[in-house]
Amino acid sequence: MKIKCNQNNFLNSILTVQKASSVNTTLPILQGILIEAKNDHLVLTATNLELGIESHMNAEILDTGRVVLPSRLLSEIVRKLPDAEIELEVKDNYIVKLSCLNSVVTIQGLDPEEYPALPQVSDGQKLELNQKMLSEMIRQTIFAVAIDESRPILTGALLEVSGNTVNMVCLDGYRLALRRGRIEKAQKDRSVVIPGKSLAEIAKIINDDNIDITIMVAENHVLFDLGDTRVISRVLEGEYLNYQQIIPSEYKLRVKVDRDILAASIERASLIAREGKNNLIKLNIKEGKMIITSNSEAGQIYEEIPILLEGSELEIAFNARYLSDVLKVVDDQELCLDFNTNVTPCIARPISGDQFTYLLLPVRTFS
Amino acid sequence: MKIKCNQNNFLNSILTVQKASSVNTTLPILQGILIEAKNDHLVLTATNLELGIESHMNAEILDTGRVVLPSRLLSEIVRKLPDAEIELEVKDNYIVKLSCLNSVVTIQGLDPEEYPALPQVSDGQKLELNQKMLSEMIRQTIFAVAIDESRPILTGALLEVSGNTVNMVCLDGYRLALRRGRIEKAQKDRSVVIPGKSLAEIAKIINDDNIDITIMVAENHVLFDLGDTRVISRVLEGEYLNYQQIIPSEYKLRVKVDRDILAASIERASLIAREGKNNLIKLNIKEGKMIITSNSEAGQIYEEIPILLEGSELEIAFNARYLSDVLKVVDDQELCLDFNTNVTPCIARPISGDQFTYLLLPVRTFS
Repeated sequence: MKIKCNQNNFLNSILTVQKASSVNTTLPILQGILIEAKNDHLVLTATNLELGIESHMNAEILDTGRVVLPSRLLSEIVRKLPDAEIELEVKDNYIVKLSCLNSVVTIQGLDPEEYPALPQVSDGQKLELNQKMLSEMIRQTIFAVAIDESRPILTGALLEVSGNTVNMVCLDGYRLALRRGRIEKAQKDRSVVIPGKSLAEIAKIINDDNIDITIMVAENHVLFDLGDTRVISRVLEGEYLNYQQIIPSEYKLRVKVDRDILAASIERASLIAREGKNNLIKLNIKEGKMIITSNSEAGQIYEEIPILLEGSELEIAFNARYLSDVLKVVDDQELCLDFNTNVTPCIARPISGDQFTYLLLPVRTFS
Repeated sequence: MKIKCNQNNFLNSILTVQKASSVNTTLPILQGILIEAKNDHLVLTATNLELGIESHMNAEILDTGRVVLPSRLLSEIVRKLPDAEIELEVKDNYIVKLSCLNSVVTIQGLDPEEYPALPQVSDGQKLELNQKMLSEMIRQTIFAVAIDESRPILTGALLEVSGNTVNMVCLDGYRLALRRGRIEKAQKDRSVVIPGKSLAEIAKIINDDNIDITIMVAENHVLFDLGDTRVISRVLEGEYLNYQQIIPSEYKLRVKVDRDILAASIERASLIAREGKNNLIKLNIKEGKMIITSNSEAGQIYEEIPILLEGSELEIAFNARYLSDVLKVVDDQELCLDFNTNVTPCIARPISGDQFTYLLLPVRTFS
């Protein structure tokens, strides 16, 4: 194998696929990147067996072939090379010679035959999604994915298509995040649960361009096709929770509040709350104002913010982080908080429309 | 004690003195900031017993008094408050009430009587130094200060004044960094050894303004007076090494090289070198070019860069980090590297003038 390519293009491809390469693994080959010189272009591949990323790039192919190179060292070296032409040549025993202007680097590579092939995802159902919208959907839900592995299905995000609607749902037993999107062409109903870790890496690769990404759902895998880059993730097996039935359809009181004002108060209250056991903040909802308080060993805080209240007054307590996580990702200037009692969930939703629904379980502290 | 002050001014003073407050300490009071309301202004003080910082700021004093508040919590809360007027009032049992617009925070303070007083440094010798120059002198030498405590005096930087010259010197047994500065008024000879850690914090406080800072050297302490901010550091006792005698006065070969080109090559070579035992890179100095190589388990690197050589050829090896540390702080576009043999020190100096002198011990690898 012998190729010539541009340093900057090569670096971009390496950094893209590197997101799937393993740092700590008992299989050293998975710390590597598979580099394949095809007839007319170069393909870089990395996988941690759950997530695989493939990047296709232009290169002058002098000799086809394949080799595996250590991901971290390769990216660091290519990053430090000047923006000029790189020649990459595989010698005996997978030794790779990289030349660029007056630098020659020789790296020990690994046998490409040992590198696991990415699963073929070719005959699944296709779905076209706007990249920018997908990126937002991930950002606005993924924080609620379960970290705890006790219910593995909840470590994934549900991607659910029905007619012209696409939903992304994450929930961890204490809170739920639902983001709705629209698709132009109505689709057959289907759903898939994608591991949260995979989705976090996918979010780093897709950009905010207003162009479509093709998603292909097969039995065990899902493919995100961005043209030059293809991302393949394992999907989680099993039934996702019937989340619709835990979202209350009615509310007794509704609070309308400015997001920035609420977020600033919650952030300050969190500084006191985090020194306590339960990271607890209390909301005292009154006509025209909400009083936010927290007590811990570190001290006390009292915050008063203006609200618009429909319904009766209420005192309720939350884990401060669950509230601040929601306020960090909502883009709307104002939002609604709907309540029933102080032992039933609070729902955060937009003033109009149904683009997002966040459900937060309160903490029982009042007798 | 009761005062009113501006949130932004208060935050700046807190962040300034906080650099001297202790994070991990067996004395909880040292994790605090002493806040004193004098008749017409506010003084904030923090100390870790080696370094003390005092910041004077404007405030409306309603009632004089003193209190100690936990440094980290205070800075985080004040940072999150809006840019408005803060009222701070000390209640019974050192409980402090901070009010700002619609926020009220109550923090448990500590007894100010327990806070150690900063040493008085009033009758030492005075020295005026340009802030920008002092900042550069610290940045260009402090990386060479000894980390190892086996010779405590070497964990400090020597500040040495003689006539119109001021020198800062750091050395750790493997390398030496000397930066020379000029002062307009000739001074009496004197020298002081300032702990490296103190100097690193001082560097963060002084800014790049072309204005003078007053340094006062007393027997056990040195004071840096910036007007509103005063920094007092303990000085290290004992004689500093007679560093002049270890800097060779002659050289057999001199290399003139472009700093950026050399730095880029050394950085790449370092990626290979750091995987080896001694972080070793070899320089092969020839007529018109220098060949930089390194070998380790990770691979090999060969770099060729243009130089101007006066004298005979030489092969010599260094710890890669010692070379890259120097190249990171030198601002000149070109520099000289002077050598005698491959077992004697290399000296890096400017093409003209004597603003800096870096000495690097080579590693013996050639028989």
